[in-house]
Amino acid sequence: MSTGKLFAIGTGPGASDLITVRAARILGEIQVLYAPASRKQGDSLALSIVREYLSEQVLIKERHFPMTADAGEKRQAWDEIAAEMAQDVTSGKQVGFITLGDSMLFSTWVFLLERLGPQLDIEVVPGITSFAGIASRAQFPLCMEQQSMAVMSCTADEEVLRRALIDHECVVLMKVYGRFEKIRALLAELGLLQCAILMANASMENEMYYPELAAIKAGEALPYFSTILVNRKYRQQKV
Amino acid sequence: MSTGKLFAIGTGPGASDLITVRAARILGEIQVLYAPASRKQGDSLALSIVREYLSEQVLIKERHFPMTADAGEKRQAWDEIAAEMAQDVTSGKQVGFITLGDSMLFSTWVFLLERLGPQLDIEVVPGITSFAGIASRAQFPLCMEQQSMAVMSCTADEEVLRRALIDHECVVLMKVYGRFEKIRALLAELGLLQCAILMANASMENEMYYPELAAIKAGEALPYFSTILVNRKYRQQKV
Repeated sequence: MSTGKLFAIGTGPGASDLITVRAARILGEIQVLYAPASRKQGDSLALSIVREYLSEQVLIKERHFPMTADAGEKRQAWDEIAAEMAQDVTSGKQVGFITLGDSMLFSTWVFLLERLGPQLDIEVVPGITSFAGIASRAQFPLCMEQQSMAVMSCTADEEVLRRALIDHECVVLMKVYGRFEKIRALLAELGLLQCAILMANASMENEMYYPELAAIKAGEALPYFSTILVNRKYRQQKV
Repeated sequence: MSTGKLFAIGTGPGASDLITVRAARILGEIQVLYAPASRKQGDSLALSIVREYLSEQVLIKERHFPMTADAGEKRQAWDEIAAEMAQDVTSGKQVGFITLGDSMLFSTWVFLLERLGPQLDIEVVPGITSFAGIASRAQFPLCMEQQSMAVMSCTADEEVLRRALIDHECVVLMKVYGRFEKIRALLAELGLLQCAILMANASMENEMYYPELAAIKAGEALPYFSTILVNRKYRQQKV
């Protein structure tokens, strides 16, 4: 193939076999793979999920996306990485970018896409979102029939979270890390503590499942990728 | 294997290669496959998505789930199908049930799960939701950072839909069929017409994409699986 193409690939929630069949095929064909890395962890979690599908010849480029409140620093990183990707594609290469979960939901990919412009040939391959992974593992329903679901970041204002918990039968609370006590108090206030579960690292070896939020000790250190699912129409059975 | 197990498998949005690697493997191993069928269409869409992964020996049981307002008729169908599945599993078989999109979101599977009880060995395999499939195909972002997303059924009251469209940066409007003009008027009232796209049959041969809702003729017959994505922070470029 002489015309370059860029594939943005969602890796799903964590288990290697929860990527799509299409993603597995494309990962075996690409020549360059961009993987997001956090300097602290050293290796990219997304990369560890897909490594078994890559060809031996692939050039892996781990690139650091800063997790900072400094918008200028983030923009500079996105500009540089997008420019490097565009160069690889225009030189005729098959290029991949991997992202945890789904590429179009809470993903850095969107910031790159905005910079890559319409002149490049781009294909986005969807991935299983973290909350779908959790719902399946815990056999915990999201929403049904005429019900609705809100997907919220716990970094939002408490009033915004309260309103979502009142308005929607099902609420996914992402980015729980460091905010658990505040969220647990809010759920208790609304009478929803019995309707919620917490899971971290769903589908991975280090998966942690709390079917009862009341059982989590005050001050207990929860994993970074902790997510709470709330469904006020559904009280989970003890597992 | 002598102990039976039941696998609930999400088939994703429609393309056969958008099922997970795990789903593909399990589909090749099961001995009995339950597929939901609508009498009108004759063949099951979910079955057509996964057929290429099935073994030659598999016993396919297409079962009809009535689409009716009669709750008693629906419950009777769920009771009967769940009882038949449980019998297959307790007799030692590897049994699959397939469902469009994801098993735990707007899926009949949950009604079966409630009836199957905790004594059976059950594994739920997640699938790509329809809206994630659409977002990828249209390269249309769902939500980012501190934003939130609501997933709504257009069968909900107009006031409920209006509030979701005001409260959330991103709104997924499912079950648009037969309600398009009402929804389009609501989006126009809220100044969101330019922030919305409509797609049907995403990732399938008969995919239809309307990047501009204003371009849809009044009274135009839209496909049954039409979904609208709204993102008020993101005005899509013309494709």
